Amino acid sequence: MTDFLQSLPGQRWAGVDLLDYKPSGSAPFKAISRQVLIGDDTLACELRYFEIAAGGHSTLERHDHAHGVLVLAGSGACLVGGEIHPLGTHDLVRIPPWTWHQFRADAGSLLGFLCMVNRSRDRPVLPTESDLEGLRADPAVAAFIRT
Amino acid sequence: MTDFLQSLPGQRWAGVDLLDYKPSGSAPFKAISRQVLIGDDTLACELRYFEIAAGGHSTLERHDHAHGVLVLAGSGACLVGGEIHPLGTHDLVRIPPWTWHQFRADAGSLLGFLCMVNRSRDRPVLPTESDLEGLRADPAVAAFIRT
Repeated sequence: MTDFLQSLPGQRWAGVDLLDYKPSGSAPFKAISRQVLIGDDTLACELRYFEIAAGGHSTLERHDHAHGVLVLAGSGACLVGGEIHPLGTHDLVRIPPWTWHQFRADAGSLLGFLCMVNRSRDRPVLPTESDLEGLRADPAVAAFIRT
Repeated sequence: MTDFLQSLPGQRWAGVDLLDYKPSGSAPFKAISRQVLIGDDTLACELRYFEIAAGGHSTLERHDHAHGVLVLAGSGACLVGGEIHPLGTHDLVRIPPWTWHQFRADAGSLLGFLCMVNRSRDRPVLPTESDLEGLRADPAVAAFIRT
């Protein structure tokens, strides 16, 4: 990237490509985009911006690598392990290794968040039917997750 | 950190300590605070939030490690190498290795920014008189820097 990237309206940046969240059909998700804001070999992490449109959600998944998340815009909620947290601007979320997590935008608002992640990382794992049974043992989690 | 840290008014977070920018007297700076938002051994980088009060500035320095910066609040400007960029909300700045840099808040506004940095990193180097002479060869840079 060049040394200065101007912010444009609507959480876009001059010179940053708007990317698919994941390849279509590779995992369950709905109405979410990805932008890599900071990512080159001078830093050991990447800073990505994900934006979920109203009513959309990220993939329910877990992996060995951790996430550090800061909400930049809108509102929604997230599942981290067995906990559900409502999310608003500048809230912080830590996703520890091997912890089930999913982000959802509110029905009437987008949810935009920064996600810091190691450049070198493993691939996410999707829940098995047995994992889903375990998660759904908690009625609040059962009502929250989208698969 | 716990997995969820709520945002409080004025760029503070529940459970995040407000820290001195640097030890007093260790380097030239004015009216700036530091908060470590994300920083543990599960991630190779830290995400810090720096806030410069109106009229304040960070240290003019350089080092081997890189910075990835995203403005979160207010307005100001930064020097990166020989370039001066005005800064507003969500602008992105990359500080390459060994590049002189300094951040200043506008006279009438704070400047608050996230800074992503490798957890393992070298210590900053201050400019020598000879370095300052070189920087001041450009009148715009001479007018901008604070030492």
